[in-house]
Amino acid sequence: MMKDNVRLERDFLGEKELSNDCYYGIQTLRAVENFPITGQKMDKELIRGMGMVKKAAAKANHRVGLLPAHIAEAIEKASDEVIAGKWNEQFIVDPIQGGAGTSVNMNANEVIANRALEILGEDKGNILILSANSHVNMSQSTNDAFPTAFKLALLNRINQLLPVMEALHCAFLEKASEFQGYLKMGRTHLQDAVPIRLGQEFGAYAAVLARDIERIRTTRTSLYETNMGATAVGTGLNADPDYIRIVTQELSDISGFPMKTSANLIDGTQNTDVYTTISAALKTCMTNLSKISNDLRLMSSGPRTGLNEILLPPRQPGSSIMPGKVNPVMAEVVNQVAFKVIGNDLTITLASEAGQFELNVMEPVLVASLLDSINMMTNVLEVFNNYCIQGIEAHVEKMEEYVMNSVGVITAINPHVGYEAAAAIAKEAIKTGRPVREICEERGVLSQKELDFILDPFEMTKPGISGRKLKEV
Amino acid sequence: MMKDNVRLERDFLGEKELSNDCYYGIQTLRAVENFPITGQKMDKELIRGMGMVKKAAAKANHRVGLLPAHIAEAIEKASDEVIAGKWNEQFIVDPIQGGAGTSVNMNANEVIANRALEILGEDKGNILILSANSHVNMSQSTNDAFPTAFKLALLNRINQLLPVMEALHCAFLEKASEFQGYLKMGRTHLQDAVPIRLGQEFGAYAAVLARDIERIRTTRTSLYETNMGATAVGTGLNADPDYIRIVTQELSDISGFPMKTSANLIDGTQNTDVYTTISAALKTCMTNLSKISNDLRLMSSGPRTGLNEILLPPRQPGSSIMPGKVNPVMAEVVNQVAFKVIGNDLTITLASEAGQFELNVMEPVLVASLLDSINMMTNVLEVFNNYCIQGIEAHVEKMEEYVMNSVGVITAINPHVGYEAAAAIAKEAIKTGRPVREICEERGVLSQKELDFILDPFEMTKPGISGRKLKEV
Amino acid sequence: MMKDNVRLERDFLGEKELSNDCYYGIQTLRAVENFPITGQKMDKELIRGMGMVKKAAAKANHRVGLLPAHIAEAIEKASDEVIAGKWNEQFIVDPIQGGAGTSVNMNANEVIANRALEILGEDKGNILILSANSHVNMSQSTNDAFPTAFKLALLNRINQLLPVMEALHCAFLEKASEFQGYLKMGRTHLQDAVPIRLGQEFGAYAAVLARDIERIRTTRTSLYETNMGATAVGTGLNADPDYIRIVTQELSDISGFPMKTSANLIDGTQNTDVYTTISAALKTCMTNLSKISNDLRLMSSGPRTGLNEILLPPRQPGSSIMPGKVNPVMAEVVNQVAFKVIGNDLTITLASEAGQFELNVMEPVLVASLLDSINMMTNVLEVFNNYCIQGIEAHVEKMEEYVMNSVGVITAINPHVGYEAAAAIAKEAIKTGRPVREICEERGVLSQKELDFILDPFEMTKPGISGRKLKEV
Amino acid sequence: MMKDNVRLERDFLGEKELSNDCYYGIQTLRAVENFPITGQKMDKELIRGMGMVKKAAAKANHRVGLLPAHIAEAIEKASDEVIAGKWNEQFIVDPIQGGAGTSVNMNANEVIANRALEILGEDKGNILILSANSHVNMSQSTNDAFPTAFKLALLNRINQLLPVMEALHCAFLEKASEFQGYLKMGRTHLQDAVPIRLGQEFGAYAAVLARDIERIRTTRTSLYETNMGATAVGTGLNADPDYIRIVTQELSDISGFPMKTSANLIDGTQNTDVYTTISAALKTCMTNLSKISNDLRLMSSGPRTGLNEILLPPRQPGSSIMPGKVNPVMAEVVNQVAFKVIGNDLTITLASEAGQFELNVMEPVLVASLLDSINMMTNVLEVFNNYCIQGIEAHVEKMEEYVMNSVGVITAINPHVGYEAAAAIAKEAIKTGRPVREICEERGVLSQKELDFILDPFEMTKPGISGRKLKEV
Repeated sequence: MMKDNVRLERDFLGEKELSNDCYYGIQTLRAVENFPITGQKMDKELIRGMGMVKKAAAKANHRVGLLPAHIAEAIEKASDEVIAGKWNEQFIVDPIQGGAGTSVNMNANEVIANRALEILGEDKGNILILSANSHVNMSQSTNDAFPTAFKLALLNRINQLLPVMEALHCAFLEKASEFQGYLKMGRTHLQDAVPIRLGQEFGAYAAVLARDIERIRTTRTSLYETNMGATAVGTGLNADPDYIRIVTQELSDISGFPMKTSANLIDGTQNTDVYTTISAALKTCMTNLSKISNDLRLMSSGPRTGLNEILLPPRQPGSSIMPGKVNPVMAEVVNQVAFKVIGNDLTITLASEAGQFELNVMEPVLVASLLDSINMMTNVLEVFNNYCIQGIEAHVEKMEEYVMNSVGVITAINPHVGYEAAAAIAKEAIKTGRPVREICEERGVLSQKELDFILDPFEMTKPGISGRKLKEV
Repeated sequence: MMKDNVRLERDFLGEKELSNDCYYGIQTLRAVENFPITGQKMDKELIRGMGMVKKAAAKANHRVGLLPAHIAEAIEKASDEVIAGKWNEQFIVDPIQGGAGTSVNMNANEVIANRALEILGEDKGNILILSANSHVNMSQSTNDAFPTAFKLALLNRINQLLPVMEALHCAFLEKASEFQGYLKMGRTHLQDAVPIRLGQEFGAYAAVLARDIERIRTTRTSLYETNMGATAVGTGLNADPDYIRIVTQELSDISGFPMKTSANLIDGTQNTDVYTTISAALKTCMTNLSKISNDLRLMSSGPRTGLNEILLPPRQPGSSIMPGKVNPVMAEVVNQVAFKVIGNDLTITLASEAGQFELNVMEPVLVASLLDSINMMTNVLEVFNNYCIQGIEAHVEKMEEYVMNSVGVITAINPHVGYEAAAAIAKEAIKTGRPVREICEERGVLSQKELDFILDPFEMTKPGISGRKLKEV
Repeated sequence: MMKDNVRLERDFLGEKELSNDCYYGIQTLRAVENFPITGQKMDKELIRGMGMVKKAAAKANHRVGLLPAHIAEAIEKASDEVIAGKWNEQFIVDPIQGGAGTSVNMNANEVIANRALEILGEDKGNILILSANSHVNMSQSTNDAFPTAFKLALLNRINQLLPVMEALHCAFLEKASEFQGYLKMGRTHLQDAVPIRLGQEFGAYAAVLARDIERIRTTRTSLYETNMGATAVGTGLNADPDYIRIVTQELSDISGFPMKTSANLIDGTQNTDVYTTISAALKTCMTNLSKISNDLRLMSSGPRTGLNEILLPPRQPGSSIMPGKVNPVMAEVVNQVAFKVIGNDLTITLASEAGQFELNVMEPVLVASLLDSINMMTNVLEVFNNYCIQGIEAHVEKMEEYVMNSVGVITAINPHVGYEAAAAIAKEAIKTGRPVREICEERGVLSQKELDFILDPFEMTKPGISGRKLKEV
Repeated sequence: MMKDNVRLERDFLGEKELSNDCYYGIQTLRAVENFPITGQKMDKELIRGMGMVKKAAAKANHRVGLLPAHIAEAIEKASDEVIAGKWNEQFIVDPIQGGAGTSVNMNANEVIANRALEILGEDKGNILILSANSHVNMSQSTNDAFPTAFKLALLNRINQLLPVMEALHCAFLEKASEFQGYLKMGRTHLQDAVPIRLGQEFGAYAAVLARDIERIRTTRTSLYETNMGATAVGTGLNADPDYIRIVTQELSDISGFPMKTSANLIDGTQNTDVYTTISAALKTCMTNLSKISNDLRLMSSGPRTGLNEILLPPRQPGSSIMPGKVNPVMAEVVNQVAFKVIGNDLTITLASEAGQFELNVMEPVLVASLLDSINMMTNVLEVFNNYCIQGIEAHVEKMEEYVMNSVGVITAINPHVGYEAAAAIAKEAIKTGRPVREICEERGVLSQKELDFILDPFEMTKPGISGRKLKEV
């Protein structure tokens, strides 16, 4: 006997009971049983993307005469609610799943079908009136619907990431400007090199991040290409040519992105190079930011037994045992997100390589990893900017003291006396601890006036005091 | 004016309001603000591990005379509740965080301190009576407490994984036995090779998995070593030698694992090779299982345009558009978890390499990734076993048909006529499509009796029918 | 007492004897002693790149009045010989080395200095007349000279790779055209899906490779930016502003590439994102080609116990024991190069992340790995094209037989009878082994005329036979 | 017409001309044509391994009566010459190749066959008398011969690596002893922590390396298992059971390793987990050494604008432009080899995962990468030890100065006044730059005697000065 508030659903493998409160159906239930892998939720933007795909398909199917108006309208209305996030808790399949996203697609098909039935005043599960497969999924396959929803999710997530990156870029530029006049010692191999300005360093951070922004921004173009209409293998079987044209228009209207049909739907269905390219851009960005974080951790090391050139804003007591200790925690968490993004890039590469024939069935793990990377980056770069970069202060005197004590200024002497003679002066300076200028004077290698000109550390931070310029002194 | 049900907490960076319902305190709050990275929860076993560490430390501190009985008892009782999972929802810091786990440690210290105060009938936040840092964290640093809790969590997680692996191993063995007599064509390079038995293949799957189990099992020994008492940098500053001895005993009693103090506490505090070794064992295991999953997907390919040698249990309709299609979804999700575990191994390697001096501050991402790998493996291998391996059926006739039609049996002729002559027969067989035996007979290369002996495919699946044995025919 | 044919060279660390036959000098010798790591040679294009850099610098230094004409000319002539490959055997430092490329730079400086001295009729090693550091390296640092030479090498190597990729792309297109009419079964999840044409598959291979070509081609723009004049840390210390302008012009003339000075020399000296971006493009390309190779290996599997849809050209006896066996060796070697390129990409990422402050001292391993990836790709894609792709033959009858036997054609019935009814037909077909059409007829679901229209497999390979079109039948 | 000094060889794909000087034959020639990938040579130990395998097989085949004495003896003699390295230049196939090592095996078979014919006074290529396939390869397949040779090569290479690691371990221990009394500041998060001794740090380096040695050493056991006799797919087809027993005995005698037959030859032929496990041990080792190298680079940073705690032996002028500069080049090259070994580990993982059915055809790239990793490690650790570790000097005064100035000693005050009061003292010390002791005295928090006891930095480097001990003061 059937329990109250329970409905029975069937598919060609059998039947299952569902609570009538559930909008999802039998195939979602099978997926939940099959894939209890991560316990995580689907990305909300992916759910929204599925809603947009289903709405666009319903509209297009109606316009080509395949779907009656009242059915199409109910599906559209239900899809709108999905897009608005109203049914997020009905999307219960695990992000990592077998079946190339079929479970995500069927979860969406079932939720929308049952909600549409409800809108029509019908019972959930009444597939004769409105079926998840025959109506909501009409003219579609998981193999075009799922990647299209993924692309929409990626576009929205990238559009959330970019302003965060741009704000960080601004902060680097502002610090570059603020620190423009602050001399410090340049270091190569962690060894004293020649003077540089702190602002120049932050300028370099801004410059590389600007390229990262551009690299990530330009990947969006590839995401505008959708394979909607490709259906199962890219041949467009069961998709009307007019539908293909119209569904893409509708998708553009609904999403606000300039979507267009992939030039080669076979290619667009089986290849995932678009995603590996995006992941690579993220990876390169986080590799750069990890290097920058390392620099900041080095410069702020100390306070008394490290370089102590800058002060990062204190964010939390650094130790449960060492009172007063403050650690560069915001930089450290950037490093760690970098390690995750690099690891995710490998997962994405492995998934991409494992495509076979007409489909890449490993897309779910690729989807989960790529969205995870973008989300973590968006989150971490916002706090990195707000809680770290914007509040950095420079220890001007300490940095100048390093420059003044350094042997590296000998490099400027080099063009005037030759590398070999300069090396002898440097060697003596290092051995004795005496200043380079003092030894130069003692050896009489250059006049006072020349030394004044050559050993000006600020001048050393730009081209000019080469052998040629000296002649003019 | 102070709001009702709110308390004010201070640390050396300032003060913050907390709802009096919260057991966590100001440092947890700072961490939540600083690290909104993944939105994930801490692993429950890690919370339990923190509880065990705090209980053991309280007991040891009491036994060496540093902590009064009533304080120690309150801390122990609160810790017991944490171990029991009663306060899981009070552990709110993000798994990925700067600060080398200080936020995890302080979250535990604060929850236990406030719960202990409550047990003592005191107000939360009354640090004069019982302080998170001075009492709960007594004789400890994050740098010994956090890795020790992590090791306990790993031990418990590995002990959950191992029986799942062993059950899968049993299933492979059972299938090996069930399929022992089933002839099939062996393949190398995906090209027809020589006969083998399906049971032999499952036997090989069992054999490699047995090594994986052993590799993972043996890593446990290294986890029994704890650096409790190392405090901040491994020197044991602020830790009484008796405390170090006692805390490890207590930890063994509480956890049930044979914990012992690391022979070199400096080493034990800064190095993370124990974890990279575990991750490598997980990675190797999933690499093997990914290969096995690929084999199963190949053997079950079809049904009509693939190999169709075995049938995996159907778990869900395979397509939203292609009726009747069933896909190898359980094998596919194993591949995907493999890709995650391999990606996590890279993250763990990167984190491990980034240690500096006395500490590896990247431990949080290492901890999160390693527990994530183990948990996903435990989850996926359970369903892979139950929903896939145990229900595999063999298509005996199909497999035999392949063997009978194959040219690869020519290999058995090889020792009797030489490689070059055998190659000529093979070439003709491939070209004409005729059976190897027919061509042998036609060319009169061996007697009927000899061919009977040599071309017995079952005999080909074991050593024996070499040139030498033929002499006895 | 000094041996015959031996000269003594000094640097600030001491002195060493060198055979007078050697053009390299003391610093090269130190590097050989310090870094016996791989035993490999430097990439010949990197040597050429060093020659171009040194020639351009000599010309520019002369033009700004820092280098007398006869010295500049001798350096230019010696550099020309290096560019021509005349002194390759004098470049003896290991590609993997500490020192950020200083040993490569000094090897070039020393070889050119000594050869220039010889051209001037002077003894090798006579640094008073012409010194490796003071004259050949004038206005330069390793930190601008080495990466610039690397960029020139990369440009030349990429320009060698691109035509090989384009030829492969052509071959895919030609096969796409040749195989355009050949029906075969499309597969998703390795399970029978719906019909496709072999030409469509090769068309998809061409399409993804076209994007790879474009991705790699566009990376060249970033390589035209040189940091010549940046000297040690990017500030341009010791470089005359006119020199910076002129040296880049000269470099363009010598190399034939439109080189320009980096907009931010600090950035251009410390950041290596240009290289990780190139490596990522290579990785994505090989990921795609590995997938294609896997498809080819699957399609050519058999001959009797595999899919046997295509025949790859036989290239070598496949087995030392199994006569007549032929393996897909050219596809297998593509997979393996893909694995190397993916591994190299990780090495390059690790090296890039390890930059500190004004320099990335890990560049040598990055340089070696990136050139290695490009060279292997160039080599393997040429033979893959010539020895595999161009000679692929299709087994037309076999492929058609699969299509005719397949249940997957049921998908086309779907829009006309609904997913659920179609699934029931599919289930019976799979269970009984009977053709889909026969069951349709028996059940009377569609008219003969409709079935003729719908079940035409060729029509299934393009959009059209949707529910809508049927109305017109 | 046939040219002089040329012979014609045939296989079932056709015929090729070979110079009579060549010992290799037609299949080697085909491989050279097919695989011009890296231009590298085969590892010499792999060639030796092939020689040992062929010798052992000849002996065993003779003992079971399959090979006449004079043929067996000629093969053994030729194999001995191969083992001795006499014919290394005849091994010309590229390490990266399709065909799962068949080309390596055939190169060995052909060289040994032709050399054996020569020994017998016969013409090269006279396969009727002695054939590469029928005689040299008798009872073998590439699929047992090649991995067995690889295992022998690995064992020899690991045995070359281990003493180098042990010497490095000794050097760390010696430095630990030499530096045992030298106080320095411990650092966590690159921030001042609490005192430690330099010797303790080197002791930790020794400790982790000892585990690495043990991890690598123990992998050898798995390499003693050979699948000789498995032939093509592990079933032992064409291998006499007595042969299997005997060939392993012979292999033990020839190689000096305690070889034994794999318990499951099917498993032993298709699975490559043994190699991923070794690679993981190498990766973990280099991850640890990269961390150590980073520490050394940090400690030796300066001389005037870095930590300047230790001096690495100067090995070469560090800059082509900055006179007197010396860089930590030996540490940097260790980092770079670490990056290669980590990259190779990924390549090996990818290759391992790509096995299918009875064989892993990706073994050549796995073999090349694993031997490459071991060889680079052997080379780099030898020079790292000799040219860096052994010559490290400590700047004792500098390190002590850091300790004396540090605020981190406040930690020792902690147990006596509570974390919160200690934090207030620390904050004032950091803000004012005054010594911790001075502020303690001013605040009267502890007596002079107590401060003497607590603030003794040497005592802080071991357990003891906890709250409990103070009571005894």
